[in-house]
Amino acid sequence: MTPLPRHLAAQESRNATPSGWEPVEGSLATPRGFRAASAASGIKRAKGALDLALIFSEVPQTSAAGVFTTNLAAAAPVHLSRRNLQESRGQARAVVVNSGNANACTGAGGIRVAERTVAAAATLFDVPPEQILVASTGVIGVPLEPELTLSQLPTLKENLSVENAASVARAIMTTDTTPKSYALRSRIGGETVHLAGVAKGSGMIHPRLATLLCFITTDALVGARMLHHVLRAAVEVSFNRVSVDGDTSTNDSVIAMANGASGVAVRPGNQSRKWFLDGLTHLCQALARMIARDGEGAKKLVTIEVSGARSDTDSELVARAIANSPLVKTAIAGSDPNWGRIICAAGYSGARFNPEKVDILVNDLFLCRKGVDARFDEAAARRELGLKELTLRVNLHAGRGSSRVWTCDLTHDYITINASYRT
Amino acid sequence: MTPLPRHLAAQESRNATPSGWEPVEGSLATPRGFRAASAASGIKRAKGALDLALIFSEVPQTSAAGVFTTNLAAAAPVHLSRRNLQESRGQARAVVVNSGNANACTGAGGIRVAERTVAAAATLFDVPPEQILVASTGVIGVPLEPELTLSQLPTLKENLSVENAASVARAIMTTDTTPKSYALRSRIGGETVHLAGVAKGSGMIHPRLATLLCFITTDALVGARMLHHVLRAAVEVSFNRVSVDGDTSTNDSVIAMANGASGVAVRPGNQSRKWFLDGLTHLCQALARMIARDGEGAKKLVTIEVSGARSDTDSELVARAIANSPLVKTAIAGSDPNWGRIICAAGYSGARFNPEKVDILVNDLFLCRKGVDARFDEAAARRELGLKELTLRVNLHAGRGSSRVWTCDLTHDYITINASYRT
Repeated sequence: MTPLPRHLAAQESRNATPSGWEPVEGSLATPRGFRAASAASGIKRAKGALDLALIFSEVPQTSAAGVFTTNLAAAAPVHLSRRNLQESRGQARAVVVNSGNANACTGAGGIRVAERTVAAAATLFDVPPEQILVASTGVIGVPLEPELTLSQLPTLKENLSVENAASVARAIMTTDTTPKSYALRSRIGGETVHLAGVAKGSGMIHPRLATLLCFITTDALVGARMLHHVLRAAVEVSFNRVSVDGDTSTNDSVIAMANGASGVAVRPGNQSRKWFLDGLTHLCQALARMIARDGEGAKKLVTIEVSGARSDTDSELVARAIANSPLVKTAIAGSDPNWGRIICAAGYSGARFNPEKVDILVNDLFLCRKGVDARFDEAAARRELGLKELTLRVNLHAGRGSSRVWTCDLTHDYITINASYRT
Repeated sequence: MTPLPRHLAAQESRNATPSGWEPVEGSLATPRGFRAASAASGIKRAKGALDLALIFSEVPQTSAAGVFTTNLAAAAPVHLSRRNLQESRGQARAVVVNSGNANACTGAGGIRVAERTVAAAATLFDVPPEQILVASTGVIGVPLEPELTLSQLPTLKENLSVENAASVARAIMTTDTTPKSYALRSRIGGETVHLAGVAKGSGMIHPRLATLLCFITTDALVGARMLHHVLRAAVEVSFNRVSVDGDTSTNDSVIAMANGASGVAVRPGNQSRKWFLDGLTHLCQALARMIARDGEGAKKLVTIEVSGARSDTDSELVARAIANSPLVKTAIAGSDPNWGRIICAAGYSGARFNPEKVDILVNDLFLCRKGVDARFDEAAARRELGLKELTLRVNLHAGRGSSRVWTCDLTHDYITINASYRT
């Protein structure tokens, strides 16, 4: 099992775990009945770089659900996985995912490549093709060599194991600097249930959706329909609330699989639904924060909390405008308490409020009170803004709407990473 | 008279001057009956830095119009100038503008400071206070010392001249690296008419509006109502089509004054309206391009031309999404022909089109044809993207809508400039 990196575990434990769930070290195969493996297929140019992964459920009846990018130029694997989930009515046995090439903007040829992968995996596992899902991440517009994936599938199948599942988080990385993995356990009525997830960022990160790829496994017994609904609900308050650079990718996919191997069922109208949704939401938020923390070039995880808005819609508009403002994010990079840029972003967000009532704080320190400078201690403000994790709090004093969004600072390294990504 | 910097003149002459108008070297006092001056008041910390300017029309009946930021947290001078233009029914004799301090988010105190400036200038020139306009640019949320401006007003008045008008473009600069000034002349029925403008960028540059400050003078005789309408029309296709970083400032102001000193009248329903609007639009577009070219940290002026959209609204959505995408803009900084990011931005813009029909070109070189890689020559693409001025052309093949937007590349220097702007 992959140990959850100690610093991440410490950071995430500060975000209260919902009742009934506890974080554990683990991988996608911590939930029983799942196995996984990865390989270096050569899609990534760097020799020996992991770039292909297979996630498999041993249970014939495995529910699956997906939330995908809203980008009109959605990638071939997104089209295919969406279609397969529909045709299978929410059943899937395996996910084949590659990094290094997005298989996006690759035309009819790209669809054929994804279809060949699906067909080959279906034959290999002797399951209907619609029960194979695919995902890709990497450069856009470059044809994906089908042979690189196809030739590795038999070996990947052979290597499927609980131990090898740990490598999936690394195999899906592109510009991420750390693998992102999280797992939860719950003991309920003498049984143990697990939830696990891996995710990768870290550019083109924007609400709807905010992650390129995330895969979730659970050994809870969840119907396909319910899995679909709880996944959407959890994504809405996690990956949909992260912004790194305001770009919505062509490949965003969050895929969850539930195989019921624990014997614990999640039933509609039952308290168990809330228990499961709480765990899933916590898992997604933990992964979402890891993505923001590891935004391209990011040095800081920034939580934007907006309260006192006329409505939740207004608070979201304000929170997202602040989270997307390059000027706010460069100021944070420089630990510069430039609250004027924050109120400015709120001002153009489209939300209605009176600027002369607005309070702005970094953590617990007032920067702006009732729309004007709070005469704060500059050194203290710089200290707060210098932390690796910080919260910008904006109270509009206009109502009861509130929202929370995660983002990161905008640094030189973002430019360095993105000025020559293709090459 | 300020010479129009030779390289800018050359660049702008490539953008066809409308019939009847020709570019000339000049300043805000090239139109007859205008004078201006500037001063180093100490608002900017750097010793001797110009930070205050006065623009004055000698003609008692001078029409004026303004287009201001839509930001809810509009600065004190924006509130006051808007009110004064209303109360004066579009008449103004003078504009007092400072750089170095935005007088935004400064509460009731900020309004009083702006009002004191207006009152003092009105007394000095013996005109009604509502005929004095004010504008500010610089840091937000720091109280503006009224005495710094007030003590300079008498000297500014004494220094008003045609020669001193050249310094205004420099006095309104903040992070701009070059002054932005443009002037046009037209000979019509034996008379000569002039249009002149100065502008400053270069952060918080975004459609609606795209410039922090722009001042325009003309000696044409234009009624206040018509001046208002033609100014709005010209701004819509110039400053509203520039994006540097996606932030809409608290202080954006475009102010035009028309004093009729040429004796040439622009009349509604008359062909002269089109002639004047053409000149004004060309002037505004020239200044808008200078702002994009001098975006914070920018090394390149990028024109985004979108055609073949279902509607002009759709083409605007696509053009703006591309112009605002940090990923597109960093790719351009690195001369990286990453057209996938361009189609990706189009895909999340909200416009409707078929990604499999899209063509993307840099200048005349196809990067993407019918949604897939055009197998272009990499070195040739890098050469085109390496130019100081380049055009990204996107044809959606979905209709007849088209739009043009100007932006710049996103470089390390943007981060450097903005990580420590306050200090």
